[in-house]
Amino acid sequence: MDWKAEMNEYIEMINKALDDYIILTEEPNAIVLESMKYSLFAGGKRLRPVLMLAVCGMLGKKPAVALPYACALEMIHTYSLIHDDLPAMDDDETRRGKPTNHIVYGEGVAILAGDGLLNRAFEIMTDNTLTLEEPMHGLKAMKSIADASGVQGMIGGQTADLQNEGKEINDSMLSYIHHHKTGALISAAVKAGAQMAGVDDKEADQWENIGYALGTAFQIQDDLLDIEGDAAEMGKPVGSDEKNKKATYPALYGIEKSRKKINELTQQVLEAFNPYGEKADFLRSLTEALVNRRS
Amino acid sequence: MDWKAEMNEYIEMINKALDDYIILTEEPNAIVLESMKYSLFAGGKRLRPVLMLAVCGMLGKKPAVALPYACALEMIHTYSLIHDDLPAMDDDETRRGKPTNHIVYGEGVAILAGDGLLNRAFEIMTDNTLTLEEPMHGLKAMKSIADASGVQGMIGGQTADLQNEGKEINDSMLSYIHHHKTGALISAAVKAGAQMAGVDDKEADQWENIGYALGTAFQIQDDLLDIEGDAAEMGKPVGSDEKNKKATYPALYGIEKSRKKINELTQQVLEAFNPYGEKADFLRSLTEALVNRRS
Repeated sequence: MDWKAEMNEYIEMINKALDDYIILTEEPNAIVLESMKYSLFAGGKRLRPVLMLAVCGMLGKKPAVALPYACALEMIHTYSLIHDDLPAMDDDETRRGKPTNHIVYGEGVAILAGDGLLNRAFEIMTDNTLTLEEPMHGLKAMKSIADASGVQGMIGGQTADLQNEGKEINDSMLSYIHHHKTGALISAAVKAGAQMAGVDDKEADQWENIGYALGTAFQIQDDLLDIEGDAAEMGKPVGSDEKNKKATYPALYGIEKSRKKINELTQQVLEAFNPYGEKADFLRSLTEALVNRRS
Repeated sequence: MDWKAEMNEYIEMINKALDDYIILTEEPNAIVLESMKYSLFAGGKRLRPVLMLAVCGMLGKKPAVALPYACALEMIHTYSLIHDDLPAMDDDETRRGKPTNHIVYGEGVAILAGDGLLNRAFEIMTDNTLTLEEPMHGLKAMKSIADASGVQGMIGGQTADLQNEGKEINDSMLSYIHHHKTGALISAAVKAGAQMAGVDDKEADQWENIGYALGTAFQIQDDLLDIEGDAAEMGKPVGSDEKNKKATYPALYGIEKSRKKINELTQQVLEAFNPYGEKADFLRSLTEALVNRRS
């Protein structure tokens, strides 16, 4: 199968499941559910959940085994965007060409929608783990995701980013922000996918490292696009990171060195797929597409 | 042992564990950890975790078995207060006589501190469940806590409360808000405590109902104190709910009927303790103290 067709199949699986996991009500909580669903279906590329399903499949289990954890991770990613866009954080009024959550629903509901998505992620993972044949696989995947999204992971990265807005930053701070803010969740997608396939702890840690390499390449490419990209293609004002004096790899090292770093990291990821022959074809194509993307 | 001495022993256990669960760093995430700890140690009464430990103990297991889940619940309660106090929500500058989190750390860090506490709660529960002799007990307790704190529980109640601020509300909306905003977490404390003691699902549901009765009595008493209480004793301006036109039981039914309702609910709770003889002495005293408290 063409890798894009496979990608679309994964995305369809994920979207169907996400839709089923957030049921709209006519109860007094109606508005927060609507608001959660608005951001969940506001054009996300589903990179993290697709990665998780594909790694689980490459390592020999049905991708569907990882589906609840993949949806949970997408909810965590989405909540982080909602809170990140708030006036007290990045103060963004649009994302992917659409009004951000607080612009549509107000700040109070947007805060609660973010909280609701984070909480729902753990409801779904706990529920699913209760009925697994191998609850330990589910618990280990949950631990990888929980660690990656917490103060030692993504929230730590958001904190560093917020604290350093408008400041000159050094090499190690930039690396901290990349590693934690974007790297942690992408890495957790790869690691948890492997854990749902039943790999041992040592192999899970190896996949975690591969995930970090991919996440870092993805983030540097994102920063490059922000400089070079076309506003219409990206759906957000080009150069917005520069405007906010955000820490970026190209700002610190220049465009050429950034491209070289992306290539090194990509090679590291592709090598890890070598033992899996054609079972890794989809992940190879996805990796190359991610680091060569124009939007 | 005197019940207050037992209460202090529980509180000491909880405070020690909470302190150990949030380790300050000198990393770029330092400020968010400091901010999380500030609110965790800003004078909370530890009602929910004490209830969980005591129920687990009354039903025959060591209270310490429930300690990680009890601390997680306290973190969830604390994060909800941080977010509830934000300008976009209740806009409170003090709580229990101290400046609220966003007044000390700014709104951005306060949002992240709330997110961090909610996430940390699930990190702790997942970690602990991975090493339990009976992981199913831990997973069931996690499910009770996750359900209670989500959009079908506490966040749903916060949403309804936010949406109805300044509006006339009816009986059923008031009941929705009480049941979800305060009732759900207190009920989850009782239910999860019973689950960590190993009760079956039917008995867990019965304890959930008892928890709701106690939670509702507690909330009505809280509303009464807001009307009658003394400002210095409460650490917040008396009548602040009335000022904000918040939905309260006494505002809708009057003081006498509110007191009667508290008594009915209290009797229901005390009856549930009857089979446990002197093992329930602490919980009897705690229940009576809660519904008769003056601050």
